[in-house]
Amino acid sequence: MPRELATGAPLEDYLPYQLFRIVNRLTLNLKKDLRPAKMTLSRWRILSVLTAADGRSMGELAAYMVIEQPALSRVVDQLARDKLVIRRLAVDDNRVVRVYLTPAGRLKFKEIRPLELRHYAHAIKGFEPAQLENLNKLLSRLWQNLGQPQE
Amino acid sequence: MPRELATGAPLEDYLPYQLFRIVNRLTLNLKKDLRPAKMTLSRWRILSVLTAADGRSMGELAAYMVIEQPALSRVVDQLARDKLVIRRLAVDDNRVVRVYLTPAGRLKFKEIRPLELRHYAHAIKGFEPAQLENLNKLLSRLWQNLGQPQE
Repeated sequence: MPRELATGAPLEDYLPYQLFRIVNRLTLNLKKDLRPAKMTLSRWRILSVLTAADGRSMGELAAYMVIEQPALSRVVDQLARDKLVIRRLAVDDNRVVRVYLTPAGRLKFKEIRPLELRHYAHAIKGFEPAQLENLNKLLSRLWQNLGQPQE
Repeated sequence: MPRELATGAPLEDYLPYQLFRIVNRLTLNLKKDLRPAKMTLSRWRILSVLTAADGRSMGELAAYMVIEQPALSRVVDQLARDKLVIRRLAVDDNRVVRVYLTPAGRLKFKEIRPLELRHYAHAIKGFEPAQLENLNKLLSRLWQNLGQPQE
């Protein structure tokens, strides 16, 4: 049993706690920037996913965001109401709804993105490119494990 | 500017996204286990912090949890009402409230912890101890950066 699995060990040695507190801190920092821009975190995250990969189906978006579909639907509704995204039936399969950024959605992303990148640059200050790559590789592997069925 | 800072790059290359989706997945997995035990995620996290470090002040707990104090107070109220924690004034400073696990709180933690560890063991399957240590070290450094004042 790896050391990290022992109870009573310092919390900092427990990897899920390490991950959790970093994400919480990044999230709290970002929230402060989103408030004046009248953005919520979930809406912001959907704009980010669509910027990287526009025209995703609702199912694909839910997978990217790692949230359940009803929660996703509510947020996409809000974004559509604010005209930041538009929903269209897929040309090849009209049971599938695809979500696209509008020009206003793109603009919103461009406005806020530098604020997010500022936090990120602060977080990785002093990291060598090789260390970042290594970190990314280790996290990818963790993510792959999580996608495998659990015994 | 590191590659990760470019817009339009695959989302998977953006470290905060990697971290976010892993934490979301671990959280969703854990939530399923907590529901039958009538536990919420925030309550569970406070029990975990107290198991590692009992008798923390509310300020220390908020720092460990990386949440704001009003949110923390609500959750500690619920735990106290369920008799899983008890609050006492610090002996040396009666402006400070310290939070302690009760025997029932300890028992609750012991009940649920194996479920959490099962998810964790699944996540790190196939990792060498040295890789885990490396991952932990890189994340600690990221966390330290986040604690430094931002320019």
